[in-house]
Amino acid sequence: MALQSKIKPVELVGEKVVLIDQTILPYEYKKIEITDFRDIAKAIKDMIVRGAPAIGISGAHGLALAALEYKKLEKSEFFKMLDEAAQYLISQRPTAVNLEWAVNKLLDFAKQQREFSVNEIVEKMFEYSKKLELEDIEINIAIGDNGATIIPKGATILTHCNAGALATVGYGTALGVVRSAFEKDNTVQVFADETRPRQQGARLTTWELVEDGIPVTLITDGMSGYFMKKGMIDVVVVGADRIAANGDSANKIGTYNLALVAKAHNIPFYIAAPLSTIDTSIQTGDEIVIEERDAAEVTHINGETVCAKGVNVINPGFDVTPHELIAGIITEKGILRPNYVKSIASVKA
Amino acid sequence: MALQSKIKPVELVGEKVVLIDQTILPYEYKKIEITDFRDIAKAIKDMIVRGAPAIGISGAHGLALAALEYKKLEKSEFFKMLDEAAQYLISQRPTAVNLEWAVNKLLDFAKQQREFSVNEIVEKMFEYSKKLELEDIEINIAIGDNGATIIPKGATILTHCNAGALATVGYGTALGVVRSAFEKDNTVQVFADETRPRQQGARLTTWELVEDGIPVTLITDGMSGYFMKKGMIDVVVVGADRIAANGDSANKIGTYNLALVAKAHNIPFYIAAPLSTIDTSIQTGDEIVIEERDAAEVTHINGETVCAKGVNVINPGFDVTPHELIAGIITEKGILRPNYVKSIASVKA
Repeated sequence: MALQSKIKPVELVGEKVVLIDQTILPYEYKKIEITDFRDIAKAIKDMIVRGAPAIGISGAHGLALAALEYKKLEKSEFFKMLDEAAQYLISQRPTAVNLEWAVNKLLDFAKQQREFSVNEIVEKMFEYSKKLELEDIEINIAIGDNGATIIPKGATILTHCNAGALATVGYGTALGVVRSAFEKDNTVQVFADETRPRQQGARLTTWELVEDGIPVTLITDGMSGYFMKKGMIDVVVVGADRIAANGDSANKIGTYNLALVAKAHNIPFYIAAPLSTIDTSIQTGDEIVIEERDAAEVTHINGETVCAKGVNVINPGFDVTPHELIAGIITEKGILRPNYVKSIASVKA
Repeated sequence: MALQSKIKPVELVGEKVVLIDQTILPYEYKKIEITDFRDIAKAIKDMIVRGAPAIGISGAHGLALAALEYKKLEKSEFFKMLDEAAQYLISQRPTAVNLEWAVNKLLDFAKQQREFSVNEIVEKMFEYSKKLELEDIEINIAIGDNGATIIPKGATILTHCNAGALATVGYGTALGVVRSAFEKDNTVQVFADETRPRQQGARLTTWELVEDGIPVTLITDGMSGYFMKKGMIDVVVVGADRIAANGDSANKIGTYNLALVAKAHNIPFYIAAPLSTIDTSIQTGDEIVIEERDAAEVTHINGETVCAKGVNVINPGFDVTPHELIAGIITEKGILRPNYVKSIASVKA
């Protein structure tokens, strides 16, 4: 059995959604209970819950909460309101495909249950959303186990942002690979990019690896080339928010720089993501919408200003790493290799 | 006449050295007066004054303060103490060659005045150190004017760290190029890398460019590739702390990543530095000592922790950009081009 993390960032408990508030980690560990789908939307927007798989499952749970709220409505009105709630949830963050994937999956499921009463549909939706939640861990463990095969003995794995237990339901994609590798070989270690502006690497990746006893060294985003040139990094593994049919992968801003720097040192750069992150409706990364976020994320850290007044800021939340820079995409169905158009088509058919 | 900055980070005023405290900028603008060379050493170590040319001049002024302190000593004892003070000043920061260059320049000058009384030597040392200070601005203006010739009309110039007025005596090397370019064409603008861990880009470059009315956009260190791919960056210009005989250049950590990312987009990457930054006693960048600094610079921002407890940290202050990635080295004697072994030898002879 895989080395499961104790960390459960999103969990459906009865008719409540329980989230770890990731905006205050690692300073404070607090769970919040949500019963209104609008609060789920806000939690996604404000990154109380973040990470492509985790916001996907949270969005589905949010839709289940909306269904519960509308369960007194007549069936056609119920579905109309459900559609609106789904669109509202999906609209909170545009880049990660998992959000629309999971919300639409639950919505489609609900529509397939039209023969039942609204009460029954709501009940089935809660069951199905819980099933999606539990499947996410199984998928991550499969990703981790597949990915562990490409981690050399005693390797130092560099990662960016947090694609860990906190970004999923509880095991992680990139950090799932780390967990599976560490279970087999406890001499592997992690270097974590800080990941400005929101510091998910510094705040979340360090926290969850320290919690689970996996050695982790924090570096700033500009240091990767320095350590690669010294031969201190063996492999890079990161998550993804949306992968196009040709393998181009959107992930947290800074990932593209890291991939270029890895390429210059001939260090393999891997994406770890569930198949639900692959969006075959888009051919290349050029079609991926990049979310622009609030300037305050750049100008402030922990509520304190870190720059001069009067400066301009542009704050793209993501960038796209072109497929040429990616050695493989680690999924629950194995490691996809170039040519990605073919390897992706073969598993997404 | 060049567009001079109002900013004077280091200034010898009578028998006092006046520094801008750069550790609290841009939150607070405060000048401090120093009369003891040990406090100059501490100011260099703690980065109250930073930037290769600025710590060079500060070090020289520090040696002048030491000379003043020892002026009652018999001449041979005076020179012995002066030697010790010089080594102490130089030892504060190992990577920037300008510190040893300027301190040794004043020390050598003093030794050439052996025929005079100690009192006279001290007086001459103050005059000479002031001359070095004033020459630094002239050198920077020449660097700026030479560099402006490679800035396209309306260009967006990306820079890293702060190689500005604050890093020198008052005009800047990389930002000297910006100032000279802006004087000719006020449609040029700057993108400033934040430059974690100490955020000299966010704190100092934004502050001095806003002060001087030059448009500046702050980005995090991981964003450069994103903007380059979008065609929003025309040229990269950064400073340097030590340049080897083959052109390999040490500069603030993160510079090497930036140079690799620029190369991948065919965007020219320039170093702007005075000839005093070139150290022909070393053949390649492999010989440059990289200062490792306190882990707290990575784990804390403005005194507040930004990561989990228990994380390891390695904090190299600099990295080396190999000469192959450098389009030109902008100096006061013109722009040096590859082959650098030859072009450097021709100006340093």
